[in-house]
Amino acid sequence: METITLSDIEQMELLARVQFATSLPGAKPISLIGTTNSIGETNLAPFSSVIHLGSSPCLLGMISRPDSVNRHSAANIIETGCWTINHLHPQILDAAHQCSARYPQEISEFDAVGLSPVFHQGFAAPFVSESRFRIGLELIDVISIPVNGTQLIIGKVVLVQVPREYRLDHGGIDLIGLDCLASTALDTYFQLQLLARMSHAKPGIPPHRI
Amino acid sequence: METITLSDIEQMELLARVQFATSLPGAKPISLIGTTNSIGETNLAPFSSVIHLGSSPCLLGMISRPDSVNRHSAANIIETGCWTINHLHPQILDAAHQCSARYPQEISEFDAVGLSPVFHQGFAAPFVSESRFRIGLELIDVISIPVNGTQLIIGKVVLVQVPREYRLDHGGIDLIGLDCLASTALDTYFQLQLLARMSHAKPGIPPHRI
Repeated sequence: METITLSDIEQMELLARVQFATSLPGAKPISLIGTTNSIGETNLAPFSSVIHLGSSPCLLGMISRPDSVNRHSAANIIETGCWTINHLHPQILDAAHQCSARYPQEISEFDAVGLSPVFHQGFAAPFVSESRFRIGLELIDVISIPVNGTQLIIGKVVLVQVPREYRLDHGGIDLIGLDCLASTALDTYFQLQLLARMSHAKPGIPPHRI
Repeated sequence: METITLSDIEQMELLARVQFATSLPGAKPISLIGTTNSIGETNLAPFSSVIHLGSSPCLLGMISRPDSVNRHSAANIIETGCWTINHLHPQILDAAHQCSARYPQEISEFDAVGLSPVFHQGFAAPFVSESRFRIGLELIDVISIPVNGTQLIIGKVVLVQVPREYRLDHGGIDLIGLDCLASTALDTYFQLQLLARMSHAKPGIPPHRI
């Protein structure tokens, strides 16, 4: 094992340090965040920081960096109070990654990259028609993270769209059937292979696979 | 596509709702969090909520639920000001999952599941000797999330241990070489397959793979 110290990290060239830092969580989720502003200009941006915050109610969070391409997403969410999460599969990866380019506010990434917005009645934010696993959220809170000016945006899940055959008997979603992607660093994408489903762990009972 | 509404979610049976809610982020990271208290009792707990918060300085966050098995982890981090993240590979999955059992405070999960603590000079929290990709963090902030009483625990990365051959030329870490795992829901684990590394996206330039 090589030990990389704080001083080693500080001496890394900027892009290498970002690639390094964004590798540290391990496998990350990756999805497209769909938003609109109050005059109906839509926006689509890739995020790899979506996290589960609670199940009752069903809450998800994500991190917004004020200096980044996703600044339009955060502004739109605060303006309209809602957004969508659209999961990826291999056939839409290129278009999804292209949404990380810095398009001006008045250009919709939907048009620029060739994805189609689709709306659900009574819900302002656009879903990605090509995505197979889509979530609609209502804004609950925006929490400032003082140490570096980022924000934790928290939403309540109000609707989920997924083909019926990818809902598993135990309640979860079949990410393998959906060919849902994972990511790491700034630019690297993975497919998933099922390794194991484990039984509920209890002290004194050896772990076993279901 | 089937549309699952807020009312459908609220009517789910509790465990099914937790499996559903913890599937929504898509692929999640999974690692073992190593901590100790001030009298040297060690603790090891699986977390799937580690997120990148910043690269300069290099910051990671994770979510702690006060009612969960990981309450010992948060208490220890606040007591000692440090913790470790230890990534998983298939050979240590069973032991890692077993750390989610509710052992009493005085029993170390290291002993209970058969993993070995290893210490780095000057750093109080234990690393998992069997892990191939280990991170040491110093506590920076604990941010309360009022909507459901969870906490965002923020740390600065002060050391990283990984075999030299898994550091990539661009600065990132080779999760495929490490056979680093991903997870979903409460109990499901994946291996990763490389799909693509994408070039930096710019408006007007078609996406391409490196």
